[in-house]
Amino acid sequence: METLARTSMNVCPFVKAHTADGLRKLAHDHGLLAMAQHCPVMGPALRAERHYSTATKPAHARAEGVAVAAAKVSRSVDNPVELDGFKTNEKPFNYDAAVSEQLEAKRKDHSYRYFNNINRLANEFPKAHRAREDDKVMVWCSNDYLGMSKNQQVYETMVKTMQKYGVGSGGTRNIAGHNRHAINLETEVAALHKKEAALVFTSCFVANDSVLTLFGKRFPNGVIFSDELNHASMIVGIKNARIKKHLFKHNDMKHLEQLLSMYPKSTPKLIAFESVYSMCGSVSPIEKICDLAEKYGALTFLDEVHAVGMYGPHGAGVAEHLDFDAHLKAGIASPSYKTVMSRVDLITGTLGKSFGVVGGYVAGSCNLMDWIRSFAPGFIFTTTLPPAVMAGLATSIRIVRRNIEDRVNQQKNVRYVKKQFANLGIPVIPNPSHIIPLLIGNPTDCKKASDILLNKHKIYVQAINFPSVPRGTERLRITPSPHHGKEISDQLIAAVEDVWKSLGLKRVSDWEAFGGHCGVGSANHESVVPLWTDDQIKLTNADLNPNVIGPVFKQLEVSSGIRL
Amino acid sequence: METLARTSMNVCPFVKAHTADGLRKLAHDHGLLAMAQHCPVMGPALRAERHYSTATKPAHARAEGVAVAAAKVSRSVDNPVELDGFKTNEKPFNYDAAVSEQLEAKRKDHSYRYFNNINRLANEFPKAHRAREDDKVMVWCSNDYLGMSKNQQVYETMVKTMQKYGVGSGGTRNIAGHNRHAINLETEVAALHKKEAALVFTSCFVANDSVLTLFGKRFPNGVIFSDELNHASMIVGIKNARIKKHLFKHNDMKHLEQLLSMYPKSTPKLIAFESVYSMCGSVSPIEKICDLAEKYGALTFLDEVHAVGMYGPHGAGVAEHLDFDAHLKAGIASPSYKTVMSRVDLITGTLGKSFGVVGGYVAGSCNLMDWIRSFAPGFIFTTTLPPAVMAGLATSIRIVRRNIEDRVNQQKNVRYVKKQFANLGIPVIPNPSHIIPLLIGNPTDCKKASDILLNKHKIYVQAINFPSVPRGTERLRITPSPHHGKEISDQLIAAVEDVWKSLGLKRVSDWEAFGGHCGVGSANHESVVPLWTDDQIKLTNADLNPNVIGPVFKQLEVSSGIRL
Repeated sequence: METLARTSMNVCPFVKAHTADGLRKLAHDHGLLAMAQHCPVMGPALRAERHYSTATKPAHARAEGVAVAAAKVSRSVDNPVELDGFKTNEKPFNYDAAVSEQLEAKRKDHSYRYFNNINRLANEFPKAHRAREDDKVMVWCSNDYLGMSKNQQVYETMVKTMQKYGVGSGGTRNIAGHNRHAINLETEVAALHKKEAALVFTSCFVANDSVLTLFGKRFPNGVIFSDELNHASMIVGIKNARIKKHLFKHNDMKHLEQLLSMYPKSTPKLIAFESVYSMCGSVSPIEKICDLAEKYGALTFLDEVHAVGMYGPHGAGVAEHLDFDAHLKAGIASPSYKTVMSRVDLITGTLGKSFGVVGGYVAGSCNLMDWIRSFAPGFIFTTTLPPAVMAGLATSIRIVRRNIEDRVNQQKNVRYVKKQFANLGIPVIPNPSHIIPLLIGNPTDCKKASDILLNKHKIYVQAINFPSVPRGTERLRITPSPHHGKEISDQLIAAVEDVWKSLGLKRVSDWEAFGGHCGVGSANHESVVPLWTDDQIKLTNADLNPNVIGPVFKQLEVSSGIRL
Repeated sequence: METLARTSMNVCPFVKAHTADGLRKLAHDHGLLAMAQHCPVMGPALRAERHYSTATKPAHARAEGVAVAAAKVSRSVDNPVELDGFKTNEKPFNYDAAVSEQLEAKRKDHSYRYFNNINRLANEFPKAHRAREDDKVMVWCSNDYLGMSKNQQVYETMVKTMQKYGVGSGGTRNIAGHNRHAINLETEVAALHKKEAALVFTSCFVANDSVLTLFGKRFPNGVIFSDELNHASMIVGIKNARIKKHLFKHNDMKHLEQLLSMYPKSTPKLIAFESVYSMCGSVSPIEKICDLAEKYGALTFLDEVHAVGMYGPHGAGVAEHLDFDAHLKAGIASPSYKTVMSRVDLITGTLGKSFGVVGGYVAGSCNLMDWIRSFAPGFIFTTTLPPAVMAGLATSIRIVRRNIEDRVNQQKNVRYVKKQFANLGIPVIPNPSHIIPLLIGNPTDCKKASDILLNKHKIYVQAINFPSVPRGTERLRITPSPHHGKEISDQLIAAVEDVWKSLGLKRVSDWEAFGGHCGVGSANHESVVPLWTDDQIKLTNADLNPNVIGPVFKQLEVSSGIRL
């Protein structure tokens, strides 16, 4: 009974909102127990006592107990009343056994993770050594998408900064941890996305979680609309927002509009989505989402984690890519018309993938940045990234912005590998981006394939199983960088062909016979056109407007909290 | 009415659990509306329609609308029915105005933060320059407690590691981002706390949030007991845990026991607390909390963020300090009896304060670490810290463990400054730790005092206002390191005396006349004994058992997910 009472306290807004005294008074004056019988939750529970393992009292006494127990257990902290039977000799909860059981379930459903010890070598990129230094493997699944982690200029900036400013920031942004490196980096990020301002976080996980949580906290009557394939960090943030939410089918604009249209324009809304979805490589219709956001009065929240550095003439992401020529021509300045990028309210991105170090950020208007800066605990109450990391990142972003050739070369490598796999009938989940997901479809074969590649072929491609992807869609996820050229690509392709043969894995034709799966072998699947067009992959650094770097004045105001 | 219906969907577990069709059927077959009248939430709302701004329909029609609207608005995603009146010409929600309003409120209540641009100089520690390089100030409020951010060996380790392994990890722990540096660092952390294993996070904010959230998620019938002064990261984690929680009065064991005793031993419980509370310097009764946890069957979760590096013979924190002699003698090994440290289930700590770089961790049993590793999104779905950061930190921890002299010298400096302030009647909130909080008591004077120190005296001590501390307890928080010696301490003391004089701030005697505040000038305030005893601050590095560093075998199992 007590368990039931406490359970009800966790879910029932009515019980939660009352003090113990209040509940006692209600129980006496208004017959709380009688009311509880009508409650759709408590009613059936009272009758069935499903939650209850030790039914020792008669039904009537038990029913009566609910209201009493609820009253007793509530927040009367100054004068708690002990419930009968709590001081028994019962055994304490066995945490160890419970935890072991949960882990065992994970092993049984093949979602238990085994880490691979991979030490990526800067001077032999994309090679790494395993536990032993002479046991080398070729890495084909890193998110160091452009190989910036081995960039000499970034390295030198970091060494120089550490020499002068030490290895750590020594405090939060508010207490001794705000400095020129933070200001410079945020200015650089804001300039990249052509936004008024930006804020740097310890990771984009924290940025996504913090911003989405904040939206819910500050707009409790708001609603969040979230693409069903959104990343875990966004799912966590949306859960923590604790407001009404709707999932819309992946990239399904009709469905999104159906959901948006259910609410008045005056209801605060936020549409959360990504540009490139990392596990399948699909790309969202950003412009259409902005259209819907405008029509229904929603904020747009775009995660460009798997796109920054790699799309757009300056690597600002898919939003920049969609107005490619205008941004190419304008350089640092904004094109003279509204762009897709300028229409997005909040852009989040990572500093640990294409930019090669660690950290995350959000970019947007001064006002929104000041709001996040002022209210988000995940930004406020945490140690600032080390000065050297921030200085290295500012350098990295500058380099990436003016190096379109890295983006072009990556795309060329991606096209080559995808084409060879197509020729061999190796099933690549079709997509217009740099991600090459090889469909396997079950966790056991997926892990086996990864293990054979690693141990026999010295090629590291991590098996991606549930919960990172839905069950039945297990895959190997390959991510070529600009430095994964023809020679090692051919090694990869031969190795994958060998694995497919030796494990007898399904090829495109097999999936076709199966009716298609994840877009592989689907009869009605539209042919996918790469984001980077044939013309765009002919561009060189000389085609960029050289005036690519410059200050973004307003950023300085937000960082220091001073309004000019 | 629609708003009310939607509101009910957010809070009512019954409505949430049903599809639109299910609700329609219930409305028809079982008179949902009649039932709703009995609901303690919907009933009064239906009668009063408090939530509803535009009451245009007669009462009966309105009441009827609830069930219908609830049915309509619920998750019938395939076939949503638009509600009347949503396609009006009403204006969209004005995000900019709402955000501005929230920021304005923050300005008005003096909790709006202004960042100070502070660039700490490794070779002139504890000096920093402000925006201009020739504008130098002495930093007295950093959490780089031991000055490890300027340690030459840590710096060299980081440079060497970056040279060989690049500046970033390139992936999550599961995908290309698990390496020897992570394994080594986690082994080092586990050894520090004499635990079986440890896990490194991007920050201790994320570690605290992740672990506490996980407890709630995996033990939905559990209860969390939290000290009322716990850090924001723990508060966020406990909120996100979304289970029953109780705040207990700061360090009040009687209150904690009252709360614990309300639940059966078989209920999963977690007691969340800190060792040193950073804003007031108070220290928790760890041993007594462990006693209560054992008596009532609770897990203990101890945040040693403001203690690691500084307490205990090897800097493992206050838990180690409480068995000082035993740990001193045992060195790396565990003392032959149960220690306070071994009794704590989960210890979290930071890598960005005493250890000088960035990051956070949790240490505990192999089983618990494997559980967190396997289930916590904040650990799983984020880029690993750069190899150089992790390698530098492993070096830093080794140095800190065998350098008791840094701990001793810090305590000597703290004692000196506290004593001088006492002589001058400058109100230090009494505490047994290294934190020196100067009570001011209002946000305006607090900011003024900080500004005068910075601009006139070139001394940086951040003003700590609400919400970091309760209103009316605003303070300057001073943190001497081992390198804040007599000469600069005397400068600080003279400057603070000048500020107190020029602003006419309250001294101890004034607070005494006031009846005391925060322990300052309280008649019945017990005299505080420092954690480091007179004997302990005589120790030198030669007194440490030299065999301080060694491997912790089990850690390797957890990191790779392999059970031996």
